[in-house]
Amino acid sequence: MSGLLSQKLEVVNLGLPSFAAAIAGAGGSVTQVAWAPPAGGDRAVGEALAKLIGNPAVEAANKKAYGLYLAAQPRLAGVGIARDVVPGVDGRVVLHAGAPVEWSRMCGPMQGGICGALVYEGWASDLEAARQLAASGAVKFDSCHHHGAVGPMAGILSPSMPVWIIDNPEHGNRAFSTLNEGLGKVLRYGANSPEVLARLKWFETTLAPALKAALAITGPIDLKPLMAQALHMGDEMHNRNVASSALLFRKLAPAMMKSGIEAADIAASMDFFTANDFSFLNVSMAACKAMMDAAHGVEGSSLVTTMARNGVEFGIRVSGTGSQWFTTPAPRVNGLYFPGYSIADAAPDLGDSAITETCGIGGFAMASALAIVKFIGGKPDEALGYTRAMADITLGRNPSFTLPALNFAGSPAGIDIRKVVDTGVEPVVNTGIAHKDAGVGQIGAGITRAPLPCFAKAVEALASRL
Amino acid sequence: MSGLLSQKLEVVNLGLPSFAAAIAGAGGSVTQVAWAPPAGGDRAVGEALAKLIGNPAVEAANKKAYGLYLAAQPRLAGVGIARDVVPGVDGRVVLHAGAPVEWSRMCGPMQGGICGALVYEGWASDLEAARQLAASGAVKFDSCHHHGAVGPMAGILSPSMPVWIIDNPEHGNRAFSTLNEGLGKVLRYGANSPEVLARLKWFETTLAPALKAALAITGPIDLKPLMAQALHMGDEMHNRNVASSALLFRKLAPAMMKSGIEAADIAASMDFFTANDFSFLNVSMAACKAMMDAAHGVEGSSLVTTMARNGVEFGIRVSGTGSQWFTTPAPRVNGLYFPGYSIADAAPDLGDSAITETCGIGGFAMASALAIVKFIGGKPDEALGYTRAMADITLGRNPSFTLPALNFAGSPAGIDIRKVVDTGVEPVVNTGIAHKDAGVGQIGAGITRAPLPCFAKAVEALASRL
Repeated sequence: MSGLLSQKLEVVNLGLPSFAAAIAGAGGSVTQVAWAPPAGGDRAVGEALAKLIGNPAVEAANKKAYGLYLAAQPRLAGVGIARDVVPGVDGRVVLHAGAPVEWSRMCGPMQGGICGALVYEGWASDLEAARQLAASGAVKFDSCHHHGAVGPMAGILSPSMPVWIIDNPEHGNRAFSTLNEGLGKVLRYGANSPEVLARLKWFETTLAPALKAALAITGPIDLKPLMAQALHMGDEMHNRNVASSALLFRKLAPAMMKSGIEAADIAASMDFFTANDFSFLNVSMAACKAMMDAAHGVEGSSLVTTMARNGVEFGIRVSGTGSQWFTTPAPRVNGLYFPGYSIADAAPDLGDSAITETCGIGGFAMASALAIVKFIGGKPDEALGYTRAMADITLGRNPSFTLPALNFAGSPAGIDIRKVVDTGVEPVVNTGIAHKDAGVGQIGAGITRAPLPCFAKAVEALASRL
Repeated sequence: MSGLLSQKLEVVNLGLPSFAAAIAGAGGSVTQVAWAPPAGGDRAVGEALAKLIGNPAVEAANKKAYGLYLAAQPRLAGVGIARDVVPGVDGRVVLHAGAPVEWSRMCGPMQGGICGALVYEGWASDLEAARQLAASGAVKFDSCHHHGAVGPMAGILSPSMPVWIIDNPEHGNRAFSTLNEGLGKVLRYGANSPEVLARLKWFETTLAPALKAALAITGPIDLKPLMAQALHMGDEMHNRNVASSALLFRKLAPAMMKSGIEAADIAASMDFFTANDFSFLNVSMAACKAMMDAAHGVEGSSLVTTMARNGVEFGIRVSGTGSQWFTTPAPRVNGLYFPGYSIADAAPDLGDSAITETCGIGGFAMASALAIVKFIGGKPDEALGYTRAMADITLGRNPSFTLPALNFAGSPAGIDIRKVVDTGVEPVVNTGIAHKDAGVGQIGAGITRAPLPCFAKAVEALASRL
């Protein structure tokens, strides 16, 4: 002991940096290790986690679930009207993003989007009547995820809306999402003016038939190779979809020409599709949904199959815990705001688009989308860092989604609730930011994190089932 | 002196590494500096170089020339038939890539391409007759560059061929290139079979009219923003043009629809354009030609305005030395060969496409095209290294062409013959590789270097004019 005190100290400090600072201040040599107790030191969660880590049943279940995820081969199979193709969307039903949430608790943009949808459907004559109808309980609201669907931001999906149909023949499942409306005043950000609803009608009458006819000619389009190529072209397919949109367009355009659709309608459809760098976003989301749904429902698996925000709560679902949601209040996003707006104007984190991160792209593939930092803030090096960090909380790397900037390593994919809770590293999510009030629209974009409490709750639930 | 010998030696060694190895072997500390004498130690060139370095007249001329390059705003203005729009292409004239070269010295692919062009033009009934006609002296051959044109590989341009028209209203100049034929059996690689010639005819009758009609509707398309965006999407616009082709297509496709052109012809044109990831290459080259021609002819400037290969010689032209070519034998490319081929099968370096590197993209912008290393060999980190190294031999960075992987630094642009000769750093060039025989086609791709002797000759010529 006296020998120890006479030596020059070389200290490794775990956790609280203030101890390290004191040693360094006294002239000592200290190496700081970023560490926090698992589950933020919560004893019950820590004990649940201990049951799961190294558990052979969980390992086997994860192997199976991850295999189903990797084996998925999502295809863009067609376009249909929601009431005809999305299970359970008939009668007065409106789907929304994230975990289920009742009307009175919904955030402004979601209420705004729903009011717009009720007028669009003809169930209400104007927005005020729509608001009364929504509050009356005569319309059923449900999570998109309960119907194989996903929607960006408010994620409003009503029966008359056209949807992309993605199938996954490997597993026999299908997924759906609406057509992307572009930027500016759009329903998904809670805008509901006549121009917004007129655009949705035009989707029904013109754009969707043209896309449907084109897909009938191309046949189903394999999405994994297209998405892999877009990852080599600077897209992460959440906040940046310019390459994937262009790649899809060049497949659809010649087919539209051969479809027999009126030339003026094709030209208008082409104009709309090509003017919108987010055209592919909803396809990307539904493809990710199809991949993750294939991996859902494997008893014992700690794989996250859903991350989604309803504008009030951030919610996740896990392969091994069935239909249960694990939620916590949704954070506001500290991102890059458009001029005149700040975080004080923001709705809480919103939308199903975190399905992309759940699937190993989006924020997890930031290393492929260095130019995106212009849109969401930050430096290119930070983009590499986000991708590298996500490898600490995922089950593996997806060999189909390679990242040139990381020497073609696969994107880290398959979030493991055990790893998130054990390391305290929260999944990164690229996102758009909606104004908190209905009818305003997008006010920024940025990077947020899936909050730890969702994962802690899931760990406890999964442990209790074993 | 005796003090020096008693000290521990810390040596900086310039040049030959063998001296450093000897010191290190004896336990000494040595820092090796890569260095070679300017101009490979050639005294005359070194003296010429000394006259140019720091010369106020050269500095002023370079400032002017570089300003003209930066100010250029190339636009895709239209499509026309060569004889109608390319100056001096009437009668029996065929243009080719690189510096002027007479028929008897031309490489196999260039002779093959010319024979194909003579049959295509109807000047010869078959390939054998074409060969006799070419050798007879009755057809005039000239460098594309003498007519404001550029062509990839053999670069064959004959009067009936449709060409892209690029204008640069800032300077009042225009540039031209043929339409890209795709990969496989194509005239630019010396193939000349009936299918190759039938495709050229179809360009005349179908593709070019559709493109021309589309451009009449879009109006001139600004190319610098499109190219800047493609640089953020993994293209360097020499060996990788997938993003730029897709971005151009999404502008042209809706316009084609509004052109009144027959639907079947539009569909066929779209099929061809979208199936070819090199559709944009020829546009890129002509845009670069327009930018560099704007900077050409500034007396005293040491800016390189042309790098081009005719399959026999590598040639450059310099802004301050007028129409003079400085040539040296073209190297064979030590690249990535398709299965069954090796460097022994290769034609010497060929084509005008090094105009892209001359303009600060292509190999100079490798940092934007990390995925390209799959096509030309190498690792992503090496791609960054090529771009960084080119900053040592260029006059500046082009602020319009930013590179996300280098934190949005501009691409190094504007090769200075003084810097090349002073440092011995040869400009890097991405390239396709043609088989040495006519009619075979592409056999690989790789990275090559513009040979130092061209630059040394240019230094002497420029110095002699001052």
